[in-house]
This record gives sequence, C-alpha cells and structure tokens, in this order.
Amino acid sequence: MNIQTLKVEESRINEVDASNIQFGKTYSDHMLIADYVDGQWQPAQIVPYDDISMSPATTFIHYGQSIFEGVKAYKNASGHVSIFRPADNWKRFNISAERMAMPHVPEEIFMDGMRQLVELDKDWVPSSDGSSLYIRPFMFATDAFIGVKPADCFRFMIITSPAGAYYNKPTRIYVQNKYVRAFPGGIGFTKAAGNYGACMLPTAEIRKLGYDQILWTDGYEHKYVQEIGTMNVFFVLGDKIITPDLSGGTILAGVTRDSVLKLLKQHGYVVEERPLTIEEIRESFYKGELKEAFGTGTAAVIAPIAELFYDGQTLDLPPVEQWEVSNWLKKELADIRYGRTADTHHWMYKVC
Amino acid sequence: MNIQTLKVEESRINEVDASNIQFGKTYSDHMLIADYVDGQWQPAQIVPYDDISMSPATTFIHYGQSIFEGVKAYKNASGHVSIFRPADNWKRFNISAERMAMPHVPEEIFMDGMRQLVELDKDWVPSSDGSSLYIRPFMFATDAFIGVKPADCFRFMIITSPAGAYYNKPTRIYVQNKYVRAFPGGIGFTKAAGNYGACMLPTAEIRKLGYDQILWTDGYEHKYVQEIGTMNVFFVLGDKIITPDLSGGTILAGVTRDSVLKLLKQHGYVVEERPLTIEEIRESFYKGELKEAFGTGTAAVIAPIAELFYDGQTLDLPPVEQWEVSNWLKKELADIRYGRTADTHHWMYKVC
Repeated sequence: MNIQTLKVEESRINEVDASNIQFGKTYSDHMLIADYVDGQWQPAQIVPYDDISMSPATTFIHYGQSIFEGVKAYKNASGHVSIFRPADNWKRFNISAERMAMPHVPEEIFMDGMRQLVELDKDWVPSSDGSSLYIRPFMFATDAFIGVKPADCFRFMIITSPAGAYYNKPTRIYVQNKYVRAFPGGIGFTKAAGNYGACMLPTAEIRKLGYDQILWTDGYEHKYVQEIGTMNVFFVLGDKIITPDLSGGTILAGVTRDSVLKLLKQHGYVVEERPLTIEEIRESFYKGELKEAFGTGTAAVIAPIAELFYDGQTLDLPPVEQWEVSNWLKKELADIRYGRTADTHHWMYKVC
Repeated sequence: MNIQTLKVEESRINEVDASNIQFGKTYSDHMLIADYVDGQWQPAQIVPYDDISMSPATTFIHYGQSIFEGVKAYKNASGHVSIFRPADNWKRFNISAERMAMPHVPEEIFMDGMRQLVELDKDWVPSSDGSSLYIRPFMFATDAFIGVKPADCFRFMIITSPAGAYYNKPTRIYVQNKYVRAFPGGIGFTKAAGNYGACMLPTAEIRKLGYDQILWTDGYEHKYVQEIGTMNVFFVLGDKIITPDLSGGTILAGVTRDSVLKLLKQHGYVVEERPLTIEEIRESFYKGELKEAFGTGTAAVIAPIAELFYDGQTLDLPPVEQWEVSNWLKKELADIRYGRTADTHHWMYKVC
C-alpha cells in the first residue's frame, strides 16, 4: 500500500547531536496518522511531525481508551535499516485494542505505515552501537463526547524518536508489597495507558527510598513476582533460568521476553516459565544460587538487577561482570540487530 | 480571585433546543484552563470553548495520568444558580491527583474557577425540572516526553454541558464474575481515566446480552458487591438499607452516595455501610425481603434496578412505583437542588 505523504520542506535532522542523543527530546521529521470513522479505517497519511488538535471533550482524555506499543529500528554497518519484530508488536497492539474495546489496526496501516515512515526518516536512525530509532505506535478514542460509553471514532498514529545507547547501570529493585499493578480479570496484559499512570506514585515513592524500579507482585498475596512495569523479569537460580508465566493475564507478553526465551532455549539453557515466588528467590539467594536477575524490554533490552529489597531484607546480586547468561544475551541480541550474526529467527524486518 | 476572562464575541446558546437538550452534544460558550509548570500553578484563564492543541508525545496520551470529576449546577424557580457540593468534588479530585502522582489543584482555581465559569455561562443552566448544567473538571499530564516517568507539567480544565432531565428507566444489571474493575492496592477509589477505559469491553459484552450496566464484585472471590462503575449501589433488604463500605480502596466515594447516606440517617432509616455479598442479596430475595436496589451518581442521581442477573439466575425486583426509599430520596434531592426545601446540609453553593 502506498501511503499519501506530505514531506517537510526542510528536515530538522541537523538539530540532533549524533554524539549525544537524548531519547524523547526530539522526534523525527514525519508522523503517521490514520483515523477510524463510521466503522472503517480512513486512508493513512504521513505528514510533518506537528502538534495535534482535539476537542477538550475528547473521550480518551476522560476515560482512557488509549493504547501504545514500543518498537525499535536499527541501522547496520552497511547502512541498511531494519525493524526488530514489528509484526509481533502489531499482534500485541491488536490484543490490547480488543481488551480496550477499540478496533483492530489492519496490517497495511500498522506494518506498511511503519515501514514507509521509517524509510522516509531513515536519516534519523542512528548508527552507533547500542543506538536505535524508537518507534511509538499508539491509538486513542476521539469521540468528542463525555458520556461514559465505548467510543466510535479512533486515531492511530506513529511517531519516532532517535535513542542513544542505553547504559544499563545495574538497577536497585524494590519488591512491591503494598500497591498492585494488575490483577486477574483486569488489563495488566495490555499496553493500555492506564496501566502506566497507576504506577507513577508507587514508583515515585520507592525512588525517594533510593530504589530505581518496582518488581510487582501478585495482588492476592504479594507472593509471586510479576514484572517490572516496563520490563519482564528473569532469574538465574542455580542452573535454571526462570521467568513468570503469562497465564494469569497480569503480565505483558514482552517481545524481548519472547526473544530471550527463544535464544536461551536455542542455546541449550534450561528455561522455565512458571509461577515464581519471592520466597523461592530468597531461598536461592541464601543457598548461593541466585546468580543473575535481569529485566527485559524494548527500551532497556537487558537490564541487570544489582539488588532486590523485599520486606526489610536486601538481596545483593554478584557483580554483573561475572554474569554469563545476561551478558551473552545482550551481545547476541545486539549482533542480530546490527547484522553481525545470522538472523536465523527472521526477526529483522528490512526497511531499506 | 478574579480570573482573567476572554469572552466569546457571540454566544452559541441559541443553538440549544431547551425542550430537547442532548447531554454532551453541546458545550457552553466558555471553558477554564490553568497550567502547572515548573512546580507551580500559572494563573487560570477563562476563554471561549475551543479545541486544544498538544504534541503527539504528550505523556498522558501514552501513560494515562488523567483524572476528572463530575458536578452539577441547578437553576431554581427564581432563576438563581447553585452548584451541588462542589467542595466535596474538589477534595476528591485532589485525592485522585495524589494517587496519580499529580499536583493538588488549589481551591481558588477549582472552586473560584468553577463559580466564575458557571456565572459567566449562567444562561446555559437549564431550568426545567430534572435538568442541570453538567460541569466537568479534569486534569492531565502535558510533558511532551514519552519516557515512562511521572510528569512535571499538567493542565487543569473545566468544561460544561447542559443536561436534560434524566429518565431513569429501571436498569437491568449483570453481576460481573469474570472481569474485575478494581483491586486493593490499585486505583479503584479514584476518578482516573484508566478505570473507565478498562470497563468498556466488559460493558459492551453484557449489553449484547441485553443488560444495561455491570454490578462489579471483588477481585478475590467475585463474592462481595462493589459499585456499578459510574454509580454506587444501595440495597433495601427488609427494614435495612445497605451499601458497600469504602475500606477496601476499590470503590469510589460518591458525593451522591454520601448525600444519600446523610438524608437516610436524618430521616431515621436504618443504614449500614459494610461488606455485602451477592449471596446475602440472593437470600433476601428468596425470603421476599429484597425491596429496592438502586444506583447513585452525579449523572443519574438515583437509578432504580429492575433486575439482577448473577451466575445464571435472575432476581426480579418489585415494581418501582412501590419503592418507598428511593422515590423519597429522589424527590428530597430534587427539592434541595431546585430550592423547594430548606438546604439544611448546606450543600448548595450559590453562584448567582
């Protein structure tokens, strides 16, 4: 599908300092917009990045029918640009859409739209190791009506922002036993806006105590570990690598999580997806078997955990330099993304 | 505080058909805007009602830091306009703000702002019995930044819309035992946008089965009744009037709920705020003691329930004409609001 495109008269690319890219401070020259009206998608358009205008009665402002995805495009040494597993984000976007009573976004808008947008702004994809173009597809309800009802009109958009190499200082994690992020029957498995807003205060509170992120636990007993809010979580306990399973509907099915699982299995590691209690992690720690713990997500990729604070106790992880699994994963994922190793899983979606 | 005001050149009031007011289709001539920047509130402004413009990276679009309130202004037979308990909505707004990591809105912006806005648009307050001016204060995070972090900048707004008499056809209620609206440790007690978006699909599903609204139950066991999503809920069981207590943090502390409790106690009714199981309601029904059931909220005021569907069984309530409690409440609240009886609770906040 060829998307109607209105190009900028002059690119803003020179405003970007390639040696000091600040994520989220600058957005690329263009954005994609597609509106859903009267039960059908109108033709998508690529237009210069600009503010959008809406009625103050727009329903999503009041009732939060709003979802998003996070995707990254990489430039390899030959200057070719590819997007990492965008079809998986497209599928997950539509899972979020369904739970939030929003229409599915068709493949030609999400996938072709993303490809054409990234191709047009290919100069915005940084090439230094660890850097990428962050791609943000999102959709929100646009009826100008404040009655509480599922909306009839929606807008899908994609914006992009260059992202520099992410330095993953090992994080100090607070295991949450008061607030709850998600519960069965809710929307924890979706990337709905409301899931994130509800975590802002709990996160601000633990930051005041000197921690970086929350490891969420289940809402019934605060006993089972779940996710880190913007990342899934993995633990290396003895010779096993364990991550919480997704069956409760409270954990996001991360694309990086899935990639990590596939790479680990392919490499012959013993991997378990199952309910995991904080107690089991604590026991492993005291037996000297808690070897590694890390978050996985589109933004941070692999984020090592330096310590876990739970209920008055601190579990200190061994120095990150000694970690075999996560350091290998980080290198393997980077090699695939920057085209330094064969893409045997067909994860890289070539743009140009 | 005198708020800087830019008036419309010509009012749109003539576009409104006073005999057929459609709620949420028309908004009054003016709106209030106040921005929070660099840790402080900038002066509020009243300006002509119009679209607002924002960056597509505005944080609340992506992460749902967005809250609202619902308030009503009434015009009495002498043409005087008063707002029903706005200070209680102001307090609750700030409770929502705190949980969503947003700044408190000061009294002079919320209260003075609302009063001056309603006074300026007093011709928009309908005068027919049952009608009102619906007032929607709301606030959202305005940082143009898609990193996941609590925002630094916010916008508070008030818009208003005339609302005709609300005909409360007795509602068919589906008692939810699959989806969960709120959970202890979550944000169920707030008017955060995300709470409403998450209910759209469950509500759409029960509408397909012929029901009007969901009666939510607790997330642990689907055993205790909670609220109707836009309304609190009361049951008349024998000679007692029972409503779920607020201690779990999963139920909105409704201003209409509180008004109903105060009126009932003042009138000598036996009222209980406590955990209430669907089983107790069902047993009362089979003993012939389920006399009335109704929702309470700003929009519908008192909404009688015709039937409750739970787990394959339908509980039919007696004909609404026979209901003593809710019919009395409805009349009493209307008499206070339209100035036909003494406002002994000092609930009416005089505008002009």
